[in-house]
Amino acid sequence: MHRIAKIIQQNQLANLFQQGSFGIEKESLRVHSNGELALSSHPEVFGDRNFQPYIQTDFGESQLELITPPTNKVSDTLRWLSAIHQVVQRNLAEDEYIFPLSMPPKLPDDSQIKVAQLDNSDDVAYREHLVQRYGKKKQMVSGIHYNFQISPNLVAKLHKLISPEQDLVEFQNNLYLKMVRNFLRYQWILVYLFSASPMVDASYFHQGSPIKVGQYVRSLRSSAYGYVNDPEVQVSFADLNSYVESLEHWVQIGKLTAEKEFYSNARLRGANRARDLLTTGIKYVEFRLFDLNPFAEFGMTAETANFIHYFILLMVWIDEQCSAECVNLGKERLFEVALEDPFTISKYQDEGLKILDLMAEMLQAINAPSEIWEIFSHQQEAMVNPQLTLCARTVSAIEKAGSYENFGAQLAKTYKANALERPYCLDSFANLELSTQALLTDAILQGVKVEFLDENDNFLKLSFQEHVEYVKNGNMTSLDSYIAPLIMENKVVTKKILAQAVFNVPQSLEFQDLITAQQHFAQFLQRPIVIKPKSTNYGLGISIFPQGVAKIEDFSTAIKLALQEDATVMVEDYLAGTEYRFLVLNDQCEAVLLRVPANVVGDGVSTIAQLVTHKNNSPLRGDGKHSPLKKIELGELELLHLKNQNLTPNSIPSAGTVVQLRANSNISTGGDSIDMTDQMHQSYKEIAVGVAQVLGAKVCGVDLIIPDFRQPANSKQAWGIIEANFNPMMMMHIYPAQGKSRRVTAKVLAMLFPELPYKFHWV
Amino acid sequence: MHRIAKIIQQNQLANLFQQGSFGIEKESLRVHSNGELALSSHPEVFGDRNFQPYIQTDFGESQLELITPPTNKVSDTLRWLSAIHQVVQRNLAEDEYIFPLSMPPKLPDDSQIKVAQLDNSDDVAYREHLVQRYGKKKQMVSGIHYNFQISPNLVAKLHKLISPEQDLVEFQNNLYLKMVRNFLRYQWILVYLFSASPMVDASYFHQGSPIKVGQYVRSLRSSAYGYVNDPEVQVSFADLNSYVESLEHWVQIGKLTAEKEFYSNARLRGANRARDLLTTGIKYVEFRLFDLNPFAEFGMTAETANFIHYFILLMVWIDEQCSAECVNLGKERLFEVALEDPFTISKYQDEGLKILDLMAEMLQAINAPSEIWEIFSHQQEAMVNPQLTLCARTVSAIEKAGSYENFGAQLAKTYKANALERPYCLDSFANLELSTQALLTDAILQGVKVEFLDENDNFLKLSFQEHVEYVKNGNMTSLDSYIAPLIMENKVVTKKILAQAVFNVPQSLEFQDLITAQQHFAQFLQRPIVIKPKSTNYGLGISIFPQGVAKIEDFSTAIKLALQEDATVMVEDYLAGTEYRFLVLNDQCEAVLLRVPANVVGDGVSTIAQLVTHKNNSPLRGDGKHSPLKKIELGELELLHLKNQNLTPNSIPSAGTVVQLRANSNISTGGDSIDMTDQMHQSYKEIAVGVAQVLGAKVCGVDLIIPDFRQPANSKQAWGIIEANFNPMMMMHIYPAQGKSRRVTAKVLAMLFPELPYKFHWV
Repeated sequence: MHRIAKIIQQNQLANLFQQGSFGIEKESLRVHSNGELALSSHPEVFGDRNFQPYIQTDFGESQLELITPPTNKVSDTLRWLSAIHQVVQRNLAEDEYIFPLSMPPKLPDDSQIKVAQLDNSDDVAYREHLVQRYGKKKQMVSGIHYNFQISPNLVAKLHKLISPEQDLVEFQNNLYLKMVRNFLRYQWILVYLFSASPMVDASYFHQGSPIKVGQYVRSLRSSAYGYVNDPEVQVSFADLNSYVESLEHWVQIGKLTAEKEFYSNARLRGANRARDLLTTGIKYVEFRLFDLNPFAEFGMTAETANFIHYFILLMVWIDEQCSAECVNLGKERLFEVALEDPFTISKYQDEGLKILDLMAEMLQAINAPSEIWEIFSHQQEAMVNPQLTLCARTVSAIEKAGSYENFGAQLAKTYKANALERPYCLDSFANLELSTQALLTDAILQGVKVEFLDENDNFLKLSFQEHVEYVKNGNMTSLDSYIAPLIMENKVVTKKILAQAVFNVPQSLEFQDLITAQQHFAQFLQRPIVIKPKSTNYGLGISIFPQGVAKIEDFSTAIKLALQEDATVMVEDYLAGTEYRFLVLNDQCEAVLLRVPANVVGDGVSTIAQLVTHKNNSPLRGDGKHSPLKKIELGELELLHLKNQNLTPNSIPSAGTVVQLRANSNISTGGDSIDMTDQMHQSYKEIAVGVAQVLGAKVCGVDLIIPDFRQPANSKQAWGIIEANFNPMMMMHIYPAQGKSRRVTAKVLAMLFPELPYKFHWV
Repeated sequence: MHRIAKIIQQNQLANLFQQGSFGIEKESLRVHSNGELALSSHPEVFGDRNFQPYIQTDFGESQLELITPPTNKVSDTLRWLSAIHQVVQRNLAEDEYIFPLSMPPKLPDDSQIKVAQLDNSDDVAYREHLVQRYGKKKQMVSGIHYNFQISPNLVAKLHKLISPEQDLVEFQNNLYLKMVRNFLRYQWILVYLFSASPMVDASYFHQGSPIKVGQYVRSLRSSAYGYVNDPEVQVSFADLNSYVESLEHWVQIGKLTAEKEFYSNARLRGANRARDLLTTGIKYVEFRLFDLNPFAEFGMTAETANFIHYFILLMVWIDEQCSAECVNLGKERLFEVALEDPFTISKYQDEGLKILDLMAEMLQAINAPSEIWEIFSHQQEAMVNPQLTLCARTVSAIEKAGSYENFGAQLAKTYKANALERPYCLDSFANLELSTQALLTDAILQGVKVEFLDENDNFLKLSFQEHVEYVKNGNMTSLDSYIAPLIMENKVVTKKILAQAVFNVPQSLEFQDLITAQQHFAQFLQRPIVIKPKSTNYGLGISIFPQGVAKIEDFSTAIKLALQEDATVMVEDYLAGTEYRFLVLNDQCEAVLLRVPANVVGDGVSTIAQLVTHKNNSPLRGDGKHSPLKKIELGELELLHLKNQNLTPNSIPSAGTVVQLRANSNISTGGDSIDMTDQMHQSYKEIAVGVAQVLGAKVCGVDLIIPDFRQPANSKQAWGIIEANFNPMMMMHIYPAQGKSRRVTAKVLAMLFPELPYKFHWV
């Protein structure tokens, strides 16, 4: 058994062995619907490339580079990739798409291809040099870089167990170098299994295509026709010192402009300059040989990413298979396999099967999860049957589509359409509240770093340079004081404070029991009132008497209903008018919303039931938790409400007739949200801001009753405050059923990070 | 039927009629245990008399004046009076007491009686003038002033119904003046019923007592020997104008030094100068004729206060009984009744009974609550049977005690002892959390105004001059940010943030199910760990393996237990050492506490059960909610814990042996709290402050594990952070089972109001 393998087994380190850190960088081209390269500038909406950690450009201005933050799980890396990808898709210009293949589509003349327009003059000079040496077209080749860090805990334990007398950093460097040498030796296996660049448009080659018409290869990108250095440039992986010195040599004599021009499929990372690795040590390795998988919406499937992880682990697990020099053997085989016909068995199948057998042994030994076994079996099968390789499947799909461009363009359009279907949802973070997803979207766009402190709790750490902010549930932040939400949580306290500040607040009395309430009935006689539980936010137990209450029986019934929801009941003046929600952020009224009860509008043909079904088909409607609006139900209350209007679900309302299905206007019971921000008279917005200020709240949803939103709030009788809410809903403003979207999560971000340059429009 | 009575009945205003605002000012003398006047200065602990709204001095430096804030219920006024009184009792010097009677005890020579030492020179000059005119002794007479405001809503409704054409302020003034005239006419009834100044020491009179030895009167204080103006000073209550002009006249000619020297039993209030009342209107009336009730711990019973309220209402209810001049008739009768023998039927009994009959009619008409009827019946009886009057009962008690001084001194001592019995509890606000009671105590002492925004929610509004702060649960304030407690509420988030700030935090993993946890068992093998639910604060579902866990069965049982408390379970490194609670306020470590499990110390004689009973007798122990410490139970867990030590409740531990009754050290399961603030090494206090700062918390309870509190925290291994708590308990620091009390609520107040002069010691 291999040496490290034995130590891992004997010391029960299998679990730790499978841990590590991961990161993905994905390049891809922006194209038009016809598959042609988009020549537009990198979209401004993607933030400032001087600091954007998620969305960058690689060589070309049209070449997006999406970067995931480091995570401790492959699955989390893919979630980030998915999220960043969806954000990008949703914010591309109308006729722009992401090309899903590694080899570029038909390219225009070099003169039209724009090099990335960066601020840093060194970056610009470097790209100009690349143009000189390789031409622009080769730079358009895109792929995925896969970063892997061995768990530092594992390294520390192995160090202690294997050679505690050795320097830890040296031990770690050697471990990484062994992994890299083994990887470079057997990398062809990954290309055989996961390559997807079988062809390219003839325009890619400056002096005619070396590939015959109708010929397919496994990976043009990984072949000598891909993005490779001059074969003369040989860098040693024998030890870190040799690596540094050989690399520096090529830079010194000008064969490489910079160390980063060394396009090895495994790049040692941990310091900006290779020489610094000698002191810092190798921190992680960047594996660069992965073609974009066109069938994967984001360029790589979870299966592939997991297989790569365990393949890399195998390179640690097995003893070194040959001397340092056989790295070159590995490179040779890579070039050979890259140019094989994707439908043929590989020349090195035997070696591949042998390595996969070792992998099976390892999976057994470390008790790998069943899903890894499943992934492994698929790839083992593909090693025997080339039809199953990604490349063979890609070729079939290209042929079916008629051409490489067609194939790419079709998928590009499909993927963008998918992303736009439910624009409020980041599929890979659908477990988060929608408002947190929206905030995450804005953070990705703005380049604010996000760390999930607790996903279940929607608890984020946001940082921009040295500035850190914590956010829970989308808008619970450090900017509010502790007491403000506690005040808002308590309606009695809120009301007292607002009344003392001379705001219009309906008078109210509180009761803990029916009898006391009844003793005060005379005070409410013929007075418009609302009876409600002291604390509930969902409209339960609320009775409204807009014409006043005349009979003590009705009054008593309402008190009893409210007492079912809370030990204390409030009897409050009822204000005539319409209720609007004002969202106040940082002393600004950012949005005004009218909520109307669940309703349908007749077309003269459909039944109410059919109209409801039709309305519910809107992608904005769902369970109200994973969607901005809630599907309308035809439940007991709705049927009763229809019955009171002499209607049934089978009634056919005339065209244009609005049929109300509920009395209450909550979004959570199928109500519609209508943006009124521009229409609302300014005076009410000022009142809402004033209310938030008196309560000491930076984030506040103020509900005002207003008889006429066009008339100023000049009369004492004209308006009243219903309540003030902490952690107010934001999605209903971003995705109203009618009216303009108000991207209030972006405003939250602007409030938290006033130093960010907010000059963009938001989807 | 009376005119207003009819209108109130016809318009269902009975409920509103019984509402109003109330306030009490109570004077009383500080005395020593022998009944002699305390000649010490007004205690500094009672705050600055320049702004103290609750605790003032009246004429003399030894004459406390306790002032309740205005409330809308008689019962609330008495709660305040009780609270202020208890705070004062608990903070008096050791040999000082509150004399419970209106007439002073034996007084020293005038030269020894100190006039109140006030800063304002006008106040001082005024008192010097009083000394000249009345001598010091008369000024020592104490009583209760009862303020009453008719509900402004009622006034507005009556105004609308009776004479809407009249100016509202004028209408209101007339209503108050009618009330006052009727009151002054029949005030003798209240003196008959509630007087309690039947005698006084001869030293009170400058030229010998006019009262014979053994003679008792109803009220010396309300008699001509009391605190009255020169009979020549006649002020008209006919209308407000006459009132103002006649009052100004007496000041002008020097018969009164100032308007406030006019000692009417009903004083019109609402402006500093009488003339201003003409524009502001009368806002309320101060009724000044009430003797201190020696049997009432705070000078007046709820029964008396309620009777006075309805008596005043009656003065509004009935039509005017005679012309304005008969106010003088009322005064004459008052003087007569005041000097009647308390055991005789009053000369004016018939008139009294007639008025009480009217009162019964009123109570009937307004459907008064049953407790008011009960109170009324007692007083009706007393009108017939003078033995039942307060004064008769007072005389009997004086005779029983042997002398007036004895009687007063005995009660004074009893009342102070009562107040000191459970010093952590304000009896009338026992419904509040103890920490809120402590904060209220400190606010009363410091003269910070308190308004209860919501008692059930322990929600206070504190104000000092223009500065307002809101406080919930004793230490939830505006000084903390919204996010800080949310961070602390989530242990995972707390830990991540603290670890990122390079604090010593035990490593941990989270699991949502048993199987996943079991898969990670190898990582915890032989490692000291604690297994606990992700969020619970009460020690439930926590298992500790200080020696590490060896068997997967034990591990699994612990995981299952924790999963019963929360969907997520944490497996955390266990730190060896002792846990201490550090209370951090405003970047200062204000208290350090050690909590030890419930225990008893053997005496070689008593059984464990007896020792528990004895320990539970401490007034600090109760249900743990209304007491700082909890009574020890001998429940299932305690018996098991004893059994594991081969003990039963009947075992008799040897003298000095500590028997632990629980494994956990929570105060809520009978644990002891031990103050360690002075003993704890400074370095840990600094760590606690640092933790609070990193979490952004101004109020924070930090739990540290420390191997040796005497050694500095210089080693990485030496200490660790268990958790940080928002809204930390404060009572255990104020009333520890052992060690020094730390008045942390006063520190909260100092944090909220840094402008307050904190120079006092706290009980």
